[in-house]
Amino acid sequence: MSARVSIRRAGVADAEVVLTMVRELADHQNEGQDVTVGIDDWTRMLGRDDVVVLVAEQDGRALGYVSALRRLHLWSGAEVLALDDLYVRASGRDGGVGRSLMLALARHAAPDRLTIAWGVRHDNTAAQRFYERLGAKLREKVVVSWDADTYTAALRR
Amino acid sequence: MSARVSIRRAGVADAEVVLTMVRELADHQNEGQDVTVGIDDWTRMLGRDDVVVLVAEQDGRALGYVSALRRLHLWSGAEVLALDDLYVRASGRDGGVGRSLMLALARHAAPDRLTIAWGVRHDNTAAQRFYERLGAKLREKVVVSWDADTYTAALRR
Repeated sequence: MSARVSIRRAGVADAEVVLTMVRELADHQNEGQDVTVGIDDWTRMLGRDDVVVLVAEQDGRALGYVSALRRLHLWSGAEVLALDDLYVRASGRDGGVGRSLMLALARHAAPDRLTIAWGVRHDNTAAQRFYERLGAKLREKVVVSWDADTYTAALRR
Repeated sequence: MSARVSIRRAGVADAEVVLTMVRELADHQNEGQDVTVGIDDWTRMLGRDDVVVLVAEQDGRALGYVSALRRLHLWSGAEVLALDDLYVRASGRDGGVGRSLMLALARHAAPDRLTIAWGVRHDNTAAQRFYERLGAKLREKVVVSWDADTYTAALRR
C-alpha cells in the first residue's frame, strides 16, 4: 500500500480536512472537548511559515497528518520543531503511513538540522515503541499546566 | 526580604545578566554544555514580543529570573505561555523569590488568559511540590527528542 501514499505540506486550502482529522484524533483520545479551534483559525495557521502540517494521501483521500510548530529554543538561540500531533486514520493503519509521515517531517527539519521534540502520553507504550524504533530518545518528565482560573485565584490570595 | 525585591521585564540591555543566570542554572543542573546561546542571540531574543523574561532584583542586583515563550497552540488556535526556566540564585533562595516570579508571570499572562505550561525533571520533587502549592496541575509524560544526526541516519536506511 505504501507505494501509492504521497505526502505533501498542507496549505490554507486544506484547513477543513486538517481540522476534521484533528477532531478525529482528539475524539480517539477522549479529548474532543479540548479542540476549540475553528476553520478560520486553521486557515490562518496554515498560512504561517512556522506551522508545518504534512498530510498523507492515497488516491486523493487524506490518510493522516503530522503537525509541528517551529519555535525558539532559549538555551541555543536556535529553533526546534515542536511536533504536536501524529495521526493515521483507521483505513491507513499498519501500512507504514505513520513512519512515512515522521520521515517526511525529518526531511522538512533536515536543512536547518532542527531537533524535533514532542510529548507522548505515559500510558501510550505502543507509540513509545514506535518512536524508539525511529531512534528517538525518550525520557520521563512531569508536565505542568497552570490555567488562567487557577493562577487568578493564586493572585487574589 | 521579599519586601525589597522588585520584578521587571528584561529588555535587550539585560542580555548579559540573563545569559549569566541561564548559564548558572544550566551548570547547577549539570547541563552547562547545552547552553550554546551567546550575548548577540539574547540581545535579539529579548527584543522579541514573544520572548518574556522577568528578572527579580534587590538593591540593583539580579536574584533570579523566569523565562517563557508565547507560542501557538494548534488545538485551540490561541497562544499559550511556554515557561522555559525558573531560577533563583543561592543568595535569594528561601525568600519567596521563586513564588514572586511565578506570580509575576501569571500577571503577565492574565490579560490574555494564557495557560502557562512547562516541564519539570522527573526527579525534581521539590520543584513539583512548589508548583502544586501554586495550584498547577501536574502529570507524568514521556518526552521525546529526535535530533538531526539520528533522523538523518533513519532517512538513509
